[in-house]
Amino acid sequence: MSRRGLRIAVAPDTDGRVAAAARGEGAEVVPLDQAEALAWTVSDPARFPTELPDGVRWVQLPSAGVEAWFAAGTIDAARVWTSAAGAYAAPVAEHALMLLLAGVRRLPESLAADTWRKTELRPRVGTLAGARVAIIGAGGIARALIPSLTALGADAIAVNRSGRPVPGAARTVAADAAEDVWSAADHVVIAAPQTAQTHHLVGGRRLARMKSTAWLVNVARGTLVDTDALLHALDTGGIAGAALDVTDPEPLPDGHPLWTHPRAIVTPHVANPTATLAAALDTRLAENIRRYRDGAALLGVVDAAVGY
Amino acid sequence: MSRRGLRIAVAPDTDGRVAAAARGEGAEVVPLDQAEALAWTVSDPARFPTELPDGVRWVQLPSAGVEAWFAAGTIDAARVWTSAAGAYAAPVAEHALMLLLAGVRRLPESLAADTWRKTELRPRVGTLAGARVAIIGAGGIARALIPSLTALGADAIAVNRSGRPVPGAARTVAADAAEDVWSAADHVVIAAPQTAQTHHLVGGRRLARMKSTAWLVNVARGTLVDTDALLHALDTGGIAGAALDVTDPEPLPDGHPLWTHPRAIVTPHVANPTATLAAALDTRLAENIRRYRDGAALLGVVDAAVGY
Repeated sequence: MSRRGLRIAVAPDTDGRVAAAARGEGAEVVPLDQAEALAWTVSDPARFPTELPDGVRWVQLPSAGVEAWFAAGTIDAARVWTSAAGAYAAPVAEHALMLLLAGVRRLPESLAADTWRKTELRPRVGTLAGARVAIIGAGGIARALIPSLTALGADAIAVNRSGRPVPGAARTVAADAAEDVWSAADHVVIAAPQTAQTHHLVGGRRLARMKSTAWLVNVARGTLVDTDALLHALDTGGIAGAALDVTDPEPLPDGHPLWTHPRAIVTPHVANPTATLAAALDTRLAENIRRYRDGAALLGVVDAAVGY
Repeated sequence: MSRRGLRIAVAPDTDGRVAAAARGEGAEVVPLDQAEALAWTVSDPARFPTELPDGVRWVQLPSAGVEAWFAAGTIDAARVWTSAAGAYAAPVAEHALMLLLAGVRRLPESLAADTWRKTELRPRVGTLAGARVAIIGAGGIARALIPSLTALGADAIAVNRSGRPVPGAARTVAADAAEDVWSAADHVVIAAPQTAQTHHLVGGRRLARMKSTAWLVNVARGTLVDTDALLHALDTGGIAGAALDVTDPEPLPDGHPLWTHPRAIVTPHVANPTATLAAALDTRLAENIRRYRDGAALLGVVDAAVGY
């Protein structure tokens, strides 16, 4: 690399914010045909250039989950691609905590009431104190979520691919040995990436193992949950409820039974809100520019073999 | 005290649970006329004995707030009275966190939707990361709440009578020097006891100082907030919203505007749910029996001069 700093293209550069973040790390912002790196700023693969100059050795994508970029054929083997995986972990974890608490404490029933239902509701309100919360796909979101759970007196059971202990978790279990977790957990939070292996990770069999008092929270991708199996579990009281920031299909179509289901909470994929997204992306880009300059491992390198 | 242990009456003793907790600490459960202490188990002062035998030197009440017991004339100067103040701090703090998160993340709007409103909602969803949360009346609830706020990247501003620093708070301010806190805080949680001094603690003047993006959470007592002034602030956009587990009047009457106000969340005084109440009371009684036996200061001693 030349002494004048990383030559990076920023596109589409709508407000100069990302370019400023790059310059803050000593990078030189240049047109794409002169660039060795590209910071792409919008999450729509359809707008991505169909061909990149050979000089571009590294592309930073703005999305945490990159399945749409694989599907569009954007990601190639000719250069390094990095996702924003983990960059948005804290706001998504906060949303997961909100959804879990709202479910356990029966907020939807309070909000639906137009009369003082204390006698009926108070015995049904639960607590996270003493609860065992399984986090399926324990990466950055889990690391951000666990301190909040611990502060409330809950224990986290982390499930990840390697089984390597997750800091703060009461227990970490490798995914291929985690079948017992579904029945042991008081609640389950889904935070795994979308891959061929995680499609319908939550289906009828695992829902049937879950406690009837358990809430299922999904802040990952809608396709990780089999929606029909979920509706069956909700209708039959197999689980206490589901709180979903992501759905399948997504957007959830008008008239879908989840919209009005008394045991379901749906938020429209807002776990990583506008307020936190831009700042988090800038921070991640700056960190990766530093790492690129120092020859260190980039964060969020996309692995075509595993699909994220 | 005799070697046979504290002679305590438990009334009304509906399920033997409280008596068992007392015996677990070596106390002898006896009829009221032989007792030196009384563990009263229900929160209704109307059922309390009109006169107590002189031999009863200590009464453990089951309520955290004892204003109703003062109003009923139950509490006298002839013996020591202890409330359950602080015993329910953890579940109430958990509810406060849930209400604050649900407000900041606009859950009521998601729950009211029957169509995918991502474009409209995502820019309006907030985060507690980086937020300054004032806790007015920073006692046990604040101590239980602060670790959760900190885990989410928020700072707590504690306001208490003494100004003595509250562990974990970024800043503690004495109540009589706290006027600036109302405008400095991103959100405000009310957790003070109900006394003559705290009646309408939140009125028009302080609501007007609050940020228009702020949520007000009340898990203390309804009368600490001037409901008319609150409705005015909600109607005029003076604050972003109010999340109330307690109301004035309470129960909130049918047809009250708070039931349907789009900026209000009402839960029917369920912050300390049945699931946590009994266990917390048993734990507190056991702790106070130990302290009584050891001649240590009891927890929650009621001070008639301050009213709690």
